[in-house]
Amino acid sequence: MERQDNRKATELRPIKITPGYITHPEGSVLIEMGQTKVICNASIEDRVPPFMRGQGKGWITAEYAMLPRATEQRNIRESSKGKVSGRTMEIQRLIGRALRSVVDLSKIGERTIWIDCDVIQADGGTRTASITGAYVAMVMALHQLVEKKVIKELPVIDFLAAISVGVLSDGQEVLDLNYQEDSTAAVDMNIVMTGKGEFVELQGTGEEATFNAQQLQAMLSLGEKGIHTLISQQKDTLGSITDLVH
Amino acid sequence: MERQDNRKATELRPIKITPGYITHPEGSVLIEMGQTKVICNASIEDRVPPFMRGQGKGWITAEYAMLPRATEQRNIRESSKGKVSGRTMEIQRLIGRALRSVVDLSKIGERTIWIDCDVIQADGGTRTASITGAYVAMVMALHQLVEKKVIKELPVIDFLAAISVGVLSDGQEVLDLNYQEDSTAAVDMNIVMTGKGEFVELQGTGEEATFNAQQLQAMLSLGEKGIHTLISQQKDTLGSITDLVH
Amino acid sequence: MERQDNRKATELRPIKITPGYITHPEGSVLIEMGQTKVICNASIEDRVPPFMRGQGKGWITAEYAMLPRATEQRNIRESSKGKVSGRTMEIQRLIGRALRSVVDLSKIGERTIWIDCDVIQADGGTRTASITGAYVAMVMALHQLVEKKVIKELPVIDFLAAISVGVLSDGQEVLDLNYQEDSTAAVDMNIVMTGKGEFVELQGTGEEATFNAQQLQAMLSLGEKGIHTLISQQKDTLGSITDLVH
Amino acid sequence: MERQDNRKATELRPIKITPGYITHPEGSVLIEMGQTKVICNASIEDRVPPFMRGQGKGWITAEYAMLPRATEQRNIRESSKGKVSGRTMEIQRLIGRALRSVVDLSKIGERTIWIDCDVIQADGGTRTASITGAYVAMVMALHQLVEKKVIKELPVIDFLAAISVGVLSDGQEVLDLNYQEDSTAAVDMNIVMTGKGEFVELQGTGEEATFNAQQLQAMLSLGEKGIHTLISQQKDTLGSITDLVH
Amino acid sequence: MERQDNRKATELRPIKITPGYITHPEGSVLIEMGQTKVICNASIEDRVPPFMRGQGKGWITAEYAMLPRATEQRNIRESSKGKVSGRTMEIQRLIGRALRSVVDLSKIGERTIWIDCDVIQADGGTRTASITGAYVAMVMALHQLVEKKVIKELPVIDFLAAISVGVLSDGQEVLDLNYQEDSTAAVDMNIVMTGKGEFVELQGTGEEATFNAQQLQAMLSLGEKGIHTLISQQKDTLGSITDLVH
Amino acid sequence: MERQDNRKATELRPIKITPGYITHPEGSVLIEMGQTKVICNASIEDRVPPFMRGQGKGWITAEYAMLPRATEQRNIRESSKGKVSGRTMEIQRLIGRALRSVVDLSKIGERTIWIDCDVIQADGGTRTASITGAYVAMVMALHQLVEKKVIKELPVIDFLAAISVGVLSDGQEVLDLNYQEDSTAAVDMNIVMTGKGEFVELQGTGEEATFNAQQLQAMLSLGEKGIHTLISQQKDTLGSITDLVH
Repeated sequence: MERQDNRKATELRPIKITPGYITHPEGSVLIEMGQTKVICNASIEDRVPPFMRGQGKGWITAEYAMLPRATEQRNIRESSKGKVSGRTMEIQRLIGRALRSVVDLSKIGERTIWIDCDVIQADGGTRTASITGAYVAMVMALHQLVEKKVIKELPVIDFLAAISVGVLSDGQEVLDLNYQEDSTAAVDMNIVMTGKGEFVELQGTGEEATFNAQQLQAMLSLGEKGIHTLISQQKDTLGSITDLVH
Repeated sequence: MERQDNRKATELRPIKITPGYITHPEGSVLIEMGQTKVICNASIEDRVPPFMRGQGKGWITAEYAMLPRATEQRNIRESSKGKVSGRTMEIQRLIGRALRSVVDLSKIGERTIWIDCDVIQADGGTRTASITGAYVAMVMALHQLVEKKVIKELPVIDFLAAISVGVLSDGQEVLDLNYQEDSTAAVDMNIVMTGKGEFVELQGTGEEATFNAQQLQAMLSLGEKGIHTLISQQKDTLGSITDLVH
Repeated sequence: MERQDNRKATELRPIKITPGYITHPEGSVLIEMGQTKVICNASIEDRVPPFMRGQGKGWITAEYAMLPRATEQRNIRESSKGKVSGRTMEIQRLIGRALRSVVDLSKIGERTIWIDCDVIQADGGTRTASITGAYVAMVMALHQLVEKKVIKELPVIDFLAAISVGVLSDGQEVLDLNYQEDSTAAVDMNIVMTGKGEFVELQGTGEEATFNAQQLQAMLSLGEKGIHTLISQQKDTLGSITDLVH
Repeated sequence: MERQDNRKATELRPIKITPGYITHPEGSVLIEMGQTKVICNASIEDRVPPFMRGQGKGWITAEYAMLPRATEQRNIRESSKGKVSGRTMEIQRLIGRALRSVVDLSKIGERTIWIDCDVIQADGGTRTASITGAYVAMVMALHQLVEKKVIKELPVIDFLAAISVGVLSDGQEVLDLNYQEDSTAAVDMNIVMTGKGEFVELQGTGEEATFNAQQLQAMLSLGEKGIHTLISQQKDTLGSITDLVH
Repeated sequence: MERQDNRKATELRPIKITPGYITHPEGSVLIEMGQTKVICNASIEDRVPPFMRGQGKGWITAEYAMLPRATEQRNIRESSKGKVSGRTMEIQRLIGRALRSVVDLSKIGERTIWIDCDVIQADGGTRTASITGAYVAMVMALHQLVEKKVIKELPVIDFLAAISVGVLSDGQEVLDLNYQEDSTAAVDMNIVMTGKGEFVELQGTGEEATFNAQQLQAMLSLGEKGIHTLISQQKDTLGSITDLVH
Repeated sequence: MERQDNRKATELRPIKITPGYITHPEGSVLIEMGQTKVICNASIEDRVPPFMRGQGKGWITAEYAMLPRATEQRNIRESSKGKVSGRTMEIQRLIGRALRSVVDLSKIGERTIWIDCDVIQADGGTRTASITGAYVAMVMALHQLVEKKVIKELPVIDFLAAISVGVLSDGQEVLDLNYQEDSTAAVDMNIVMTGKGEFVELQGTGEEATFNAQQLQAMLSLGEKGIHTLISQQKDTLGSITDLVH
């Protein structure tokens, strides 16, 4: 059975990663996965948050937001509401945690890497696209520190990408759900995986539904393939920096 | 190898569920898992939030909090800070989502079930204990609606419990981590599962570490056994109401 | 005339003070006055708020909250509202002020004693029960400092308890109002008194009513007797520590 | 012994009540008690807060604030802090409660009387001056409703004023403390009393001190005399309206 | 004397307006003025804010924000701070006011046009670029209403653009200041002008400096020329819609 | 044609500046322009905000507020709303910027001058009256520093006043609009000018209208005359201090 946008169950949407999209940040990309578009900027700050001070280690933290009209219906700005939603906080925590898992924080000194993921257009999968794009922006920013001889070597120990998989309401397991699929799916799972194929995060949710062990395996298998393709794309974007990741 | 509190890797901490702990709520339990103690109250409100109105269906929503001194170090109250933390929001959303997966919301009319999980003493696993206890409080509250003939039958389609599993820093997979284990674990996973053994939520996180497919299987297997024991305990607490769940 | 719960006008509800209710805090009690139940925790912090720094003296501050379903109707959490109500602030300020009146703050060094009073079940008189219970938790925490030889002697100069008195709508003066009485009383007065029988706080309010000098005397007399009983109970709970208060 | 400003223990500071101080409000006075100056405005709104709707009764509510430089040291504006302090909330609740005790709310229809007490210069006793001044502004506003034939008669059943009394650090009981006295007093008590000499509120606080029954009587006696003088002054200001209060 | 980026005093930076930049909004452009880049989206909502209801007229309101790393130094998100800065509010009010001056609000029914200006890269002149870009997005959104026959004709009575002018520290009057010029200028003026050459807003500020009548005239003259060029560019972008503006 | 209050188009309302209105501040005036009354207080703080530290220079900052009943309709307090409105922020920023333009901040050391403008009665022109009054309060506070020999000479380089001008709906340009005129005016302009006749701020707004170059000149000419009169009044109030301004 074909999907609404003619993709196969195992097929990703077209991916495009544009490096250097914004001028000021130390690392910046625009990542596009189909109609989903996220600006991922990485900024270096020469200090760490209070709870990390004096340990000689660095920190990575992320913020995520959507433009009000990234979506079909306009959303109220979180700055106008005066608070950040639970969904936003979950995503921010996820992005930061994922990126920290592939960086040796003891090698960047007492510095914070701020990751800003701003969704300018949304069509499902914004949190996984954010992680995949943010990884590239972060590596670019860290590489700049190497270039400037602030740190000796790139402290990135593996590649990292994220993708969504799910079970549609008809029981079909699919890769990379767009908004329409996501909003009607029975099960939704986000997988964050390294270049070596190890899990960093696994978040599966039955949306007023449940899933069994067999469906779990089918989803994990789809996800693994998607991650593989995404990491190829990251390597293309990073070019010669790719070899410094180890 | 034995665990710090002499448990086996496959062993839960002592569980105690005290029904009717607080007088006013429609459903109320104190759940204790070792030193972790959570008051779970379920309240029925005769209306639904704005986004649900006019659909003839009900809603279940959860709030979670800790007393400031539930922990070793005193925490600042979220009411004093004027905002709820990202961690709290994640847990609240998880509890609500999990409970909604086993209730037929179309059978409770336009009512909201408010779940309040208040941790009075914390020693790891507070979010999973909250789900396990909240399930019992919720069934009690819904059963009261049946008793009062407000609804015809108990709209609960399955049992539901949650447990944490993880990989310790020495590579050992264990069930039901206490605070000390949790704070040094390499991998931490929360599993929410139904009585039929289907997954509702699966949230695995490598804490500055990763995990492979084999470790994932080992953790899922441990979790399944733990859930089984917890659901037995829930049935003991609910007594004759148990048979009304289907 | 008898009261709704068969008590005499001069009769307190059954009192129970459970020491060591929560494990982590330096001092902890559950105080029950009839159906009113409050967890009172005392925590020691090794610094004082900014306005007290450099004076070589300590500070005592209190926070008060109710679980949302401590009451007949569920209340919205203050953390969700993002602000603390006027009522809560009044009570917090009262508890702190009352406790400070019987402690020699110059003898505890630059330390803060945080008092947390969390009402898990409410049936009137929560602020006075909080003071009576918090006093015991505070003395336990201070005694621990003595035991650990951090301070030389218990810096507590007197006992301290609190009780409500009031005038019912039928003109009867009564001791220790429960919720039903309190909500229909013409006059409501809270008395905080020391072991020597001196006033620390006196807060009398005509609720859309007034009271004359004679009624005031009757209420004060009732209150004094109630305080006497409460302090006996505190002494029983504190056991041998009792003699160190002077 | 004489007081720092040469007053006797039983002597009020000079009182001045200027009616019609601000043009727009339905009732407005500037009250001065020595160097303490408060603008008290009363506004009529043709609806009541949600919790009062449909009862056919009115409501009286008060807000209190200080200009940042009403005091010797500049205070941060509560609007800049984004929240109202506990002290402000206590005072606001007190003023509203006090005024409601002398108005027959069932006779003003579903209307709210907003009382705004803005301290433009502070020298102690701002909350009691606010009550005394607000009473006059409120009566003026209610009288305007009578004049406009919106209500039939003045629904004010008695006069009402407030004063502070206290015990100085040398043990002397005094009336109407200025800021210097107040900040060093051992005991501070605010009395709100009606024209008939009945208590509406009694709030006595030992400031790191206590007081006995005899001191209480001495303070009450001083307070009663002060209230008597204040009510005379209110009557002078209200002129012919005075006779409509009953 | 030449400017730091080799422009003449009377020269604008390169302008580019990309229509349809984001898919979902009714009107959307990316406007670039040199290195300043702003996404301007216009959304139609089928209701007006409370203060406008029942008048049969529409409303236009604007929100403005910067990505945290739009600037050389990363800024804290306003959603994280929980409040919108004074600068942001000023700009939002300015954009809304300016656009309302050229739309006949009585011809759009009870609808709100939400304008979102999100600066993704900043190099001076972001508020004026926002107005110039927002005008185009707004006209596109209103034109869509005409196309859908929701309204009869385009209710836009004139063109509208904005530009900054200033006096540099060396006394030179210049057009369209970039960030470096703006941050050291003695005088900064924003001009909002219609296609007919009438002023809508004039905001001139001496930055710890002043300006005389002659300098004012020189700046107004520069601004008028800049506005003329910007409006040509708007007409090119709007194509055939241009003729519907009258 | 005569104006609603019988003034000529070129006529200011009666001005009165009362120095020393409040006792505590270093500088204090009540400024009245017709029915508009603003208390302007200037306070000296012996430190500067974080962004100014270590530069050896001072800072001037302003806050502006209205009493809730300064206006015909009661406004909600900004402290109750928990945030400051956009309008208030604009005015605060304007007052601070204007005053900083005539003070040599390098001559006051690391001190902050806090300006508090509190409108107790409003009838149009509150922001311009605030600037005119605040200037006098500020000079008084700075002069006190000279008197106390904290600074050597008055660091004020010129006089400064502000006035509103506008175009009424009938096309007439007028000086000093009252509330009624302001709310129906087609164009509203605020002018801040020095004693030497140079502009500090110029803020002209077409209120759903526009204005041409000729109207601009007519308004500027009216404004200049008004400013001249206001500065005479400031000099009268400052008396011998006037000669120290240069």
